[in-house]
Amino acid sequence: MVRGRLQVLKYNGQSLVKIEDQAAVEYPLTIFIDNEEFATVVCSPTNLQELVIGFLASEGMIRNREDISSLDIDDHQGFAYVELKMKQVISKEFYSKRMIGSCCGKSRQFYFYNDAKTAKTIMSRQKISPEQCLELMTEMQESSEEFQLTGGVHNAALCTEKELLFSYSDIGRHNALDKIFGHCLKEKISLKDKVIVFSGRISSEVVLKVAKIGVGILISKSAPTTLGIDLAHDLGITAIGFARKNQLNIYTHPERIIGSESL
Amino acid sequence: MVRGRLQVLKYNGQSLVKIEDQAAVEYPLTIFIDNEEFATVVCSPTNLQELVIGFLASEGMIRNREDISSLDIDDHQGFAYVELKMKQVISKEFYSKRMIGSCCGKSRQFYFYNDAKTAKTIMSRQKISPEQCLELMTEMQESSEEFQLTGGVHNAALCTEKELLFSYSDIGRHNALDKIFGHCLKEKISLKDKVIVFSGRISSEVVLKVAKIGVGILISKSAPTTLGIDLAHDLGITAIGFARKNQLNIYTHPERIIGSESL
Repeated sequence: MVRGRLQVLKYNGQSLVKIEDQAAVEYPLTIFIDNEEFATVVCSPTNLQELVIGFLASEGMIRNREDISSLDIDDHQGFAYVELKMKQVISKEFYSKRMIGSCCGKSRQFYFYNDAKTAKTIMSRQKISPEQCLELMTEMQESSEEFQLTGGVHNAALCTEKELLFSYSDIGRHNALDKIFGHCLKEKISLKDKVIVFSGRISSEVVLKVAKIGVGILISKSAPTTLGIDLAHDLGITAIGFARKNQLNIYTHPERIIGSESL
Repeated sequence: MVRGRLQVLKYNGQSLVKIEDQAAVEYPLTIFIDNEEFATVVCSPTNLQELVIGFLASEGMIRNREDISSLDIDDHQGFAYVELKMKQVISKEFYSKRMIGSCCGKSRQFYFYNDAKTAKTIMSRQKISPEQCLELMTEMQESSEEFQLTGGVHNAALCTEKELLFSYSDIGRHNALDKIFGHCLKEKISLKDKVIVFSGRISSEVVLKVAKIGVGILISKSAPTTLGIDLAHDLGITAIGFARKNQLNIYTHPERIIGSESL
């Protein structure tokens, strides 16, 4: 259940009327690793397996699906119980500490230790045209009926240059990306020459997540931040923003865009 | 500096052209309490004092401005050094643990211990008309030039029913609310019978933050989530969403809306 029904008092410009409406469900999922509470993710209650696998990979706790020996989800209580093959020493204090370089250079931008451990630089030489980018964005938006009904979720899709492979929705934009990551690890989908299409902003966290997944082209409907752009530059990601109607902006690594060669 | 300039390759529907554009600055601020690293907030680099004070109050570390004996910000490095009058035993392990009640009732929804400690139920009997709500939203949007220029920030404003008092922008929607909270604590502004106008979604986190600030009416441009609505109901907050053009939806506590009496 990703939507809940509710009674709303609507002001329609003239008077107050009672209507029935829907809202996106927000669901807390607490993840336990080897019986120790690890984190609570607030999410849409769909594809929880993919979410847990992708979240753990994104946080650097696992590298492959096989690193998990068991995964049980109690969706009534909102608990996920994970056992890992190799026991991890979870030091949360250290884990979320900011990594402070000796100068204000690039290393500063990986500001948490676990990001520096898991984000990788993308070397892919794939190519895509602006028209293909816009077609993928249209396809993702058409594939998502959630947003139209509740106005409350973000979407992320894994694509080739030519077609959308699958997409996920979540009230948390990071969760939508984690579900994609989890799906790829679960189904062993190669991430070579793939594209991520995304409804949310190109922030540093989003770029780090895309680098962790291992995809070189990110197409967003929204704006970037300066740190998002700096990180995309450093991590070899082609960051494309404001992909709306028939326009888009390319912020970094334009060498993957067909037609950019002569500029 | 809240915007950075950048070179962009723009696809305008026909060809690729080089343009100069701007993006919202995303800035990591690491807060130390009594020389111990407490948290890193990724924010817009404005009103950092207000942000730090509001963040610490929101996290339950302080109640008043006077609880802080010193606050020094090194904005070049992105560090804030706070000393508290009463030394706190910071137990992060405990602090971010989910609070799990014995049943699936209301207490479950306060899912972190520090939220349960600081969020309060609002008892205010203030009243506002739908037209006033829409006027405040228009006023907030007009007061914010950031969004128009970069498309990347959220806005929050503290208002009476009749006028906007002050507003803050931030790339992080929680930060915009924390800046309001910090401003109120710093300047000892009474929160009785105030209204918060907000550009972001009515999620559980946003409702908890509004309850911590102590305001009973929240007007948002965006959608609510189900948990946001449940919490607003429990905490006595009138949650109003989709306030756009001449319409809006009232999700909870309509008794504060003029004209709802007969419905």
